Amino acid sequence: MLGNIRIVMVATSHPGNIGAAARAMKNMGLHDLALVTPKLFPHEEADARAAGADDILKAARVFNTLDDAIQDRHRVIGASARLRTIRWPQLTPRECAASIAEGGSALKSAIVFGREHAGLTNEELERCHYLLNIPCNPDFSSLNVAAALQVVSYELFQTSLGAPLQTLESDIEPATGEEMESFHGHLIQTLFDIGFLHERKTSPALTRRLRRIFNRAALEKTDINILRGILTAVQIRTRMGKPPTP
Amino acid sequence: MLGNIRIVMVATSHPGNIGAAARAMKNMGLHDLALVTPKLFPHEEADARAAGADDILKAARVFNTLDDAIQDRHRVIGASARLRTIRWPQLTPRECAASIAEGGSALKSAIVFGREHAGLTNEELERCHYLLNIPCNPDFSSLNVAAALQVVSYELFQTSLGAPLQTLESDIEPATGEEMESFHGHLIQTLFDIGFLHERKTSPALTRRLRRIFNRAALEKTDINILRGILTAVQIRTRMGKPPTP
Repeated sequence: MLGNIRIVMVATSHPGNIGAAARAMKNMGLHDLALVTPKLFPHEEADARAAGADDILKAARVFNTLDDAIQDRHRVIGASARLRTIRWPQLTPRECAASIAEGGSALKSAIVFGREHAGLTNEELERCHYLLNIPCNPDFSSLNVAAALQVVSYELFQTSLGAPLQTLESDIEPATGEEMESFHGHLIQTLFDIGFLHERKTSPALTRRLRRIFNRAALEKTDINILRGILTAVQIRTRMGKPPTP
Repeated sequence: MLGNIRIVMVATSHPGNIGAAARAMKNMGLHDLALVTPKLFPHEEADARAAGADDILKAARVFNTLDDAIQDRHRVIGASARLRTIRWPQLTPRECAASIAEGGSALKSAIVFGREHAGLTNEELERCHYLLNIPCNPDFSSLNVAAALQVVSYELFQTSLGAPLQTLESDIEPATGEEMESFHGHLIQTLFDIGFLHERKTSPALTRRLRRIFNRAALEKTDINILRGILTAVQIRTRMGKPPTP
């Protein structure tokens, strides 16, 4: 279970936090660290705080975009302290660990942690299938990013100790993040084609909600193929219906 | 429950760890911090890492001995990474939280964290009624002291919330079974309209799979409205595209 979990840190400012994160990960049996546009990395402060987890730092990969870092992931979970106006499926750390364990041994997941002061942007959160929220003092709810990562890693490890090894549905092929993105692109394009969306009248709330519906559905590759088949059929019918271009 | 728990840090070397501990405590609703012979305190690095939990640092009391720090405590729990030759009753963080909760509101407890590199001495451990051990990777089992404190505080806070965590999203209006059925009917009709399904070529496996996708998405009333709006838009475009009936 732990081998298929990637920790993604987005735009981390303090290299010390990256080192502390590596240490927390290694303590809890995690090893796959992805860094999206870290401010300073590699850095001696990261090495110092890693305190023996330098193998995690050495193996860490740096990406230019969050999309690149989660491209091959089936499930993406974004850590968020703020309550968002948009309701997104939320998990506690324990529920997050249970959900990953239930996904079985083939499920590749990513848990995404945002900037020290600003967390993840709404656009980044939209890439996530779930939000992860650590219940805490509502008057002082901003955990240090490495501390949050320590709590989540701890829950993952505790769950892994008791996780059943085999999965119930082993022949399921979940869609990757890349396939989900292509599907969303196709969906939005089709909504323009049929006039449901207009250039001057796009609603981020609406497209976000559509994203959420399909993220929550835990789509398989086959589901994606069927849904895109339907979208293509709609596009063909729509083009047939258009008056011929002059 | 949280008001009667004292966190004791023994002979901490790095003031940054004291600051991070204060932040972790405040995040999790704890406020009583005792420092036994800290190397550097107060210190600007502690203030920096506290990141807003300076009230905890200001109220922290400094003691010359562990005995002084735990003098008024009914139950003393010592954090220890090492397996001791001496067998002492051991608790996981979750068991520790449960044990304190069961002790009731009058129980004054202390949780004691040792030095960065050497933990607690045997003499200090003998002052403790229980040892607290965080299950983790046996090949890399030394957590940073503030990280360990974060994990333990997190478990205390979760336990203080009371047994079952209720769901975070209470104002969601899920779709009824009837609404789901109407939606499925509308979807299937639209698939006929666009020619994706034909009278002579319907696939029960396909319609079942579509059902499953949307059932899994746990649709709300609002989701249903949006999806049916899209289906209606498709139907209108499709009718426009049809040659006029003779």
